[in-house]
Amino acid sequence: MHKSTEGFIWTPTGYHYGLPTTSTIPSTPTSSLSGTYDVIVLGAGFTGLTTARDLAFRGKKVLLIEARDRIGGRCWTAQTDELDSSAKLEIGGAWVHWLQPHVFSELQRYGLDQFVETVSHPDAEVVGKEGRDGSATLLDPHEGKEMMERIGQLMERFFDVDGQGGRSVLSFPFNTQASVAKSAEYLKLEELSITDRVAQLELGDEDRDMLSAHAASFFGLDPGQVSFMEVLKTHALCGFDQDMIEAATMKYKISEGTTGLALAILKDFNGDRILRAPVKAVTQDLGGSFPVTVTLQNGEVYRAKALVSTIPMNVLPSITFDPPLSELRREAFTAGVTPARTDKLLVCTPTKFERGFNFTCEGDESDLPYTAGFTDGSYGPNTLLTLLTRPDHALDRSNENIRLVETLHPTGIELHSAYGHLWSQDPYAGGVMPVRKPGFMRYYEEVRRPHGRVWFAGSDFADGWRGFISGAFEDAYRVTREVLGRGDIW
Amino acid sequence: MHKSTEGFIWTPTGYHYGLPTTSTIPSTPTSSLSGTYDVIVLGAGFTGLTTARDLAFRGKKVLLIEARDRIGGRCWTAQTDELDSSAKLEIGGAWVHWLQPHVFSELQRYGLDQFVETVSHPDAEVVGKEGRDGSATLLDPHEGKEMMERIGQLMERFFDVDGQGGRSVLSFPFNTQASVAKSAEYLKLEELSITDRVAQLELGDEDRDMLSAHAASFFGLDPGQVSFMEVLKTHALCGFDQDMIEAATMKYKISEGTTGLALAILKDFNGDRILRAPVKAVTQDLGGSFPVTVTLQNGEVYRAKALVSTIPMNVLPSITFDPPLSELRREAFTAGVTPARTDKLLVCTPTKFERGFNFTCEGDESDLPYTAGFTDGSYGPNTLLTLLTRPDHALDRSNENIRLVETLHPTGIELHSAYGHLWSQDPYAGGVMPVRKPGFMRYYEEVRRPHGRVWFAGSDFADGWRGFISGAFEDAYRVTREVLGRGDIW
Repeated sequence: MHKSTEGFIWTPTGYHYGLPTTSTIPSTPTSSLSGTYDVIVLGAGFTGLTTARDLAFRGKKVLLIEARDRIGGRCWTAQTDELDSSAKLEIGGAWVHWLQPHVFSELQRYGLDQFVETVSHPDAEVVGKEGRDGSATLLDPHEGKEMMERIGQLMERFFDVDGQGGRSVLSFPFNTQASVAKSAEYLKLEELSITDRVAQLELGDEDRDMLSAHAASFFGLDPGQVSFMEVLKTHALCGFDQDMIEAATMKYKISEGTTGLALAILKDFNGDRILRAPVKAVTQDLGGSFPVTVTLQNGEVYRAKALVSTIPMNVLPSITFDPPLSELRREAFTAGVTPARTDKLLVCTPTKFERGFNFTCEGDESDLPYTAGFTDGSYGPNTLLTLLTRPDHALDRSNENIRLVETLHPTGIELHSAYGHLWSQDPYAGGVMPVRKPGFMRYYEEVRRPHGRVWFAGSDFADGWRGFISGAFEDAYRVTREVLGRGDIW
Repeated sequence: MHKSTEGFIWTPTGYHYGLPTTSTIPSTPTSSLSGTYDVIVLGAGFTGLTTARDLAFRGKKVLLIEARDRIGGRCWTAQTDELDSSAKLEIGGAWVHWLQPHVFSELQRYGLDQFVETVSHPDAEVVGKEGRDGSATLLDPHEGKEMMERIGQLMERFFDVDGQGGRSVLSFPFNTQASVAKSAEYLKLEELSITDRVAQLELGDEDRDMLSAHAASFFGLDPGQVSFMEVLKTHALCGFDQDMIEAATMKYKISEGTTGLALAILKDFNGDRILRAPVKAVTQDLGGSFPVTVTLQNGEVYRAKALVSTIPMNVLPSITFDPPLSELRREAFTAGVTPARTDKLLVCTPTKFERGFNFTCEGDESDLPYTAGFTDGSYGPNTLLTLLTRPDHALDRSNENIRLVETLHPTGIELHSAYGHLWSQDPYAGGVMPVRKPGFMRYYEEVRRPHGRVWFAGSDFADGWRGFISGAFEDAYRVTREVLGRGDIW
């Protein structure tokens, strides 16, 4: 199996950089490439792969350009003999469900609708830890259950802006414009942060803090920096049923891995592709048959009639556009959103957790790099733990940071190996997903509008499962339709 | 606008046959047709259109053959000046929702995710009527609400075969094989009819009858003839949430009509098509490049390397296959299922129903042709009522049968016009959907297995939303994958 240069394996003897994966693929041989295409698609994540496939299906000559040495973007699967070569390690985005219609539809299309279930342990050992020096404590399971019920009730109040649990505001969770057209309240509520909405409920201090922290935990961000509508939308996508959110967003992983799905789509794409090709600039002139020019960092140049950028919103400011993007659009990509800069660490341990393991690190002031963790499958004698790291408190590659995992349980956690990728420092991801700040709707039309012959797309731009795999497909379908519909180009 | 020969308009002055619709389309000119194709697809409903499109996308030379003068199969939209030419009358299947992943995904793909909502009137005037001679009575709304709550509780018990509301039995409502592999109970429960399952609950007579009737009302069939798993699957598809079933299965109609979606897919299909071409026989010989021969009723002959039949299960026995289908497969299509033979009548009335209208005709012994009706939108001064007719008690074209609508309300219903199609007598539909009898699973593999180079597909064959529009897409994706995957053919 090939190795990507991305990701790392940690073992007690040290780090090794790069992880084995089937997602690294060769480029089209240079001799077979053209200088000009109907459409150039930037980025071979799910949006880029799908847009390229669907445009090529409709007869367009397409070139897919990817900066990395692998496909899949913010989703990829590593396999390693250190653990069990059949184990699929999801280094990035992983979870899917049939409530996520587009990814589920694509999975069934390719016969990939078999899932690995992350077993929920309702009576798992819940462990808390305050900081590097504190010791882990086993939380009272009865207390934990009571707290979850209380949070559930508070969340219902949080969502209930209309006496209908929020249903009248988000009638069409997959169609922002239709929802806005139907509810006069939408744009007002979108201006509220999580903190603002919590304040409206006039709760006691403890309830207020608990609710804020829980609502913001969807994104791992400061509740003052996230629009209330980001949370309500997730709830609406889960059928306004709090019980569905866990199943819909963190239960089912694709048996063949996210890379299995990416490879299936790639196989269906009969155009050209170039990997390991970061883009430097996108320029447009007014005349000629191929007015869009892409210049790679290595100096190579390709021209097209139209271009679809599926580059993550967080990364777009690093590309030169000429003519430049509008000020409003640049503001949307920067001041309009908060990038969730969390990392994900997969820890393999021979330690047994009879009833699973569920870790939450309380306290904003903690100096631990981890905020949450849970058991995520077992491979032979080993259990896999997924740990999420504190935003903007990046897990660096120091031995000590990984070693801290050992202290997350009162009886200690034995470390066999750990796997991860520093998304927060990834130049082609810029963190995980950008989360909309209050008032993002003022940019809505601008960010989806083409910039001349250049379109922007991706899960970051989707209406429905924005930031999820399904949103990548949703936006690929939209942009494909828009590009094909431009009668003046074709 | 063209007219289909199908459907009828009734006005107080009589019947007119044939309804205006954009779903009637011309065939490929005979001079452009070939005698041989890679794949012939029989049936231009959603499964056939999608299979044809997706095979052509992947470079196959495809011929689509349709018996009717229109596309869409059991779904089509009429528009008529009698009412309001902008009104989209769904003569057949109509309802979609984002819980139906495939149709929703296709709708978003084509930018058709705008919906007309059938407004639910929770406090509608509920009317009952016993028979032709009885008079309509307004039911007590309080009593009605109490009864619905009681039925809801009974249904929970009905579904709760495992102490988990049925969840352990149907883990993957879209993947029968995965569900069967996971639950030892699946195949046992599938052998039960609705009546059998109700009997297990040891209810009093009244509860038993009420529960049986309600569970069977999903399909409008005798509860002894429907597998319990048909009902549990629908519940599972709605997230095991009874409150979702109404929204998921009878609330949202496509603004552009089912015909709008069918036309969008057709436009994306660049192969050949022949309409008004009922098939007489499908024969296969062993040798040659094009071993499958389709003979039309008009004597024309076309050959292909492979054939996908999307002909409804109810209709398949009317086609000659040589070599013949296996006995087991023929049994599946006949003794294995019960065709739901209901008709749907759309009645336009100037009568005002302040709080909507909700009609149920109680009593198995009624001689009324209607079983249920509800308000389904308003157009100018008129309200549209959808009425479902009693199975195997077909609405014939007599004036009297339509006139009975007038008697369905204590104050009378004024008839402006009525629109419909006799699905129960349609030679290319054979009723609405075939519903699986207890024990259908013994045929499961056989019906999905290709018969030589001939595949069978359609919503009737789907795992998930079988009998719904979404199931048509699901099975199109499956069969496309299977046909393309046959390395010995390509």
